[in-house]
Amino acid sequence: MREVFQQELREVQDRLVEISTLVTSSIERATESFNESNVSLAETVIADDDKIDELAAELDELAINILARQQPVARDLRIVVSALRISASLERMGDMSEHIAQLSRYRFPEKVVPKGLRGTFREMGALDVEIARKLTELLRTEDTRIAEDIRNEDDKVDALHLSVFDKVLGETWKGAAADTVDATLASRYHERFADHAVSIAKKVQYLATGDWIPQDA
Amino acid sequence: MREVFQQELREVQDRLVEISTLVTSSIERATESFNESNVSLAETVIADDDKIDELAAELDELAINILARQQPVARDLRIVVSALRISASLERMGDMSEHIAQLSRYRFPEKVVPKGLRGTFREMGALDVEIARKLTELLRTEDTRIAEDIRNEDDKVDALHLSVFDKVLGETWKGAAADTVDATLASRYHERFADHAVSIAKKVQYLATGDWIPQDA
Repeated sequence: MREVFQQELREVQDRLVEISTLVTSSIERATESFNESNVSLAETVIADDDKIDELAAELDELAINILARQQPVARDLRIVVSALRISASLERMGDMSEHIAQLSRYRFPEKVVPKGLRGTFREMGALDVEIARKLTELLRTEDTRIAEDIRNEDDKVDALHLSVFDKVLGETWKGAAADTVDATLASRYHERFADHAVSIAKKVQYLATGDWIPQDA
Repeated sequence: MREVFQQELREVQDRLVEISTLVTSSIERATESFNESNVSLAETVIADDDKIDELAAELDELAINILARQQPVARDLRIVVSALRISASLERMGDMSEHIAQLSRYRFPEKVVPKGLRGTFREMGALDVEIARKLTELLRTEDTRIAEDIRNEDDKVDALHLSVFDKVLGETWKGAAADTVDATLASRYHERFADHAVSIAKKVQYLATGDWIPQDA
């Protein structure tokens, strides 16, 4: 029984890594479509989000099934409950990628990235991609030092998010209302993407160290 | 054992109703602070969000505890897992209220509601309040007809959300960049608030009818 359970936990972990890998590919393409106004790339992000949703739903069914059959307690129980929450956060990260891609498709053939903010969004996008890669690595290795890295990268995303508002609300901003809307939404989506990663990282960290952190996504 | 379990499930339900009641009060005050630029009301919303977070975390601990001690299976297991998800969604609804209140505090003593959109936000706010009230009623009574009502109200919120963008991107829009940012964020928060309610309503509906709907918040 115990051995079967350990094997099932590895299966859960493998699936989380798989979903996180897809989310990484999704944010890579979303940020490229956003920065380069590449509408066909945006379409693939939007189409592929269904796959992420599907895998997350399957993982949830597996986790509930494990709870029913194995009746885990203590740390084992918390691992399975955490998997359910991590899957929900990964699913939301996929949604944020999709929203970013939708912005660039919606504005096409105009450029979605407002002038004067292209460098900022390039940086935010690169940070989100880096965070997604690190998250996959964290889920694979459970090396909690990576959780710290993710938190540091998230601080940088937050700073850039604030700088977008400084820019848009500053006296030199010449953007039209459409640029202001795009910048506001895109910045919010990039920031939320990173937030979800931090929330997952905290859960993995807890499982490794035993310090339970309540939901905070 | 069975009787204890039923009693514990009622405890879970009572706590969900309690949190939903607090969320209702929170969105009532948030929308009033937003519409009337009432900064002291906004402060109470922001301060009270900690209480919602705390109750949600306590409920999660109770649910995990029930899983460990009672080892529920089948429908009983899904009820407890759903409670964890519903608590996460309620916690996010509280966050959306807080964000709406923060917008009005941030802009004070200026009015946060952009001219030309006051009627729209008044309507969106009233719908969110109505949705929160119905959600509390749904959690209390498990009367699935209320779930349908919530879905219908959410459709109206979505239509108003789109109308905000039509307005802001239209030729008659005279708002400054700050107005555009406020309108964009406020509309998004109002819309997400309603989305979370729909996601909870679907879960309650499933528990009543047996049609499992995967996570979709």
